[in-house]
Amino acid sequence: MSHVFPVRVYYEDTDMAGIVYHANYLKFIERARSDWVKEQGLDQNAMREDGIVFVVRRIEADYLAAAKYDDALEVVTEVRSMTGVRLVMTQEVRRAGTTVFRAEVTAVCATLDGQPTRLPEILRRKVN
Amino acid sequence: MSHVFPVRVYYEDTDMAGIVYHANYLKFIERARSDWVKEQGLDQNAMREDGIVFVVRRIEADYLAAAKYDDALEVVTEVRSMTGVRLVMTQEVRRAGTTVFRAEVTAVCATLDGQPTRLPEILRRKVN
Amino acid sequence: MSHVFPVRVYYEDTDMAGIVYHANYLKFIERARSDWVKEQGLDQNAMREDGIVFVVRRIEADYLAAAKYDDALEVVTEVRSMTGVRLVMTQEVRRAGTTVFRAEVTAVCATLDGQPTRLPEILRRKVN
Amino acid sequence: MSHVFPVRVYYEDTDMAGIVYHANYLKFIERARSDWVKEQGLDQNAMREDGIVFVVRRIEADYLAAAKYDDALEVVTEVRSMTGVRLVMTQEVRRAGTTVFRAEVTAVCATLDGQPTRLPEILRRKVN
Repeated sequence: MSHVFPVRVYYEDTDMAGIVYHANYLKFIERARSDWVKEQGLDQNAMREDGIVFVVRRIEADYLAAAKYDDALEVVTEVRSMTGVRLVMTQEVRRAGTTVFRAEVTAVCATLDGQPTRLPEILRRKVN
Repeated sequence: MSHVFPVRVYYEDTDMAGIVYHANYLKFIERARSDWVKEQGLDQNAMREDGIVFVVRRIEADYLAAAKYDDALEVVTEVRSMTGVRLVMTQEVRRAGTTVFRAEVTAVCATLDGQPTRLPEILRRKVN
Repeated sequence: MSHVFPVRVYYEDTDMAGIVYHANYLKFIERARSDWVKEQGLDQNAMREDGIVFVVRRIEADYLAAAKYDDALEVVTEVRSMTGVRLVMTQEVRRAGTTVFRAEVTAVCATLDGQPTRLPEILRRKVN
Repeated sequence: MSHVFPVRVYYEDTDMAGIVYHANYLKFIERARSDWVKEQGLDQNAMREDGIVFVVRRIEADYLAAAKYDDALEVVTEVRSMTGVRLVMTQEVRRAGTTVFRAEVTAVCATLDGQPTRLPEILRRKVN
């Protein structure tokens, strides 16, 4: 089941090539992941107060077409796999149905000291 | 006495108008303030572990000319005034001696809960 | 008459003090200005193809309270004055009715070479 | 042969987890690529005036450890392969000799309309 999240492109997202700066797609897809996490019932503020944060471990990203100022994009997120410690998601950024960016993102949970820790139980129950 | 800090303009700093995105000058001048703070003997990592951070209270900024990709800029920082609770600085961004951006920045210290607190003693001793 | 624009705070907007990084409020209020400009019937992509862009000339900004991750903010924008060459706006960022950030922004239009030029006619007709 | 480029971590680079925000490593390594490109004798401002820009096509990134505020990092860049149309580089971000981030970046050249075009001759001569 897909999670769909809208993103509008603003001036801040562009660079002097006239297109979305490549690093900013990572921001777009993280907004979508944050929204997805919240939908699962997780509060990242409360998690952080408990000393637990999500950390990105690996990203494979393909840039397929350029997005531009004022484009109305959609981030489509799917959980690929989840174990007790590792969450793998596929995320696509689409414009009018065409995929302009695609990434596979591996995230884990860690303490604020950087020690890996298990994913929140609620997440594992929801997804599996 | 002025503190001078070099900044090079990269792709990430530009926008689709082909110039430095206006919000990024605030990043440039904060890098310079951080460097100045460190020169005064303050460790912002240690401060934060002690629950104290610098917080910007007010900025008056004038954009005088556009900086572009690969420009070699200099941030020139001067302390305008410092009381026990408030630090006011003038910061200019210059390119080849010409001022392209100028700001007056008022900063205070606060706890992580947002309560105002006195500026570090070492800073007040150094500057006054 | 006020223009109201919603902004959600994401991880990208925060810094290690646990709050929204001060420069990012300038991004939030520019998203609102862009939305307002579009509502007036102006297409900034077309403007740029014609060699005209909006440029910020001056910002006076007051930081009144800290916004945090996942805060639901509103940017409230009002035109303060508009002449043939200069647009002055007041913009407030509010959370649950409380103003956390307030700015007065002066913008002009310029060619891609940085030469000042008149504001688009449509804007002047709409607002005045 | 490696290209080494220093990066200092500032407040703007961190997020509320107290570490460098994951998307910002992409900025760090692009600064290094830009510096490398300049060292090869290429002027990206002139290229863009001629309608040619570098575009990232693919990134594989591994996040190995967290960088923090005020860390003195080094980006170590190596050309992995270069054909007439495609440049593949390995880039590592190191702190005190330890690799905290590693990426393989595939870049191409494109016109401002997004059409792929050959890499600049001077680059191909230098590297091969």
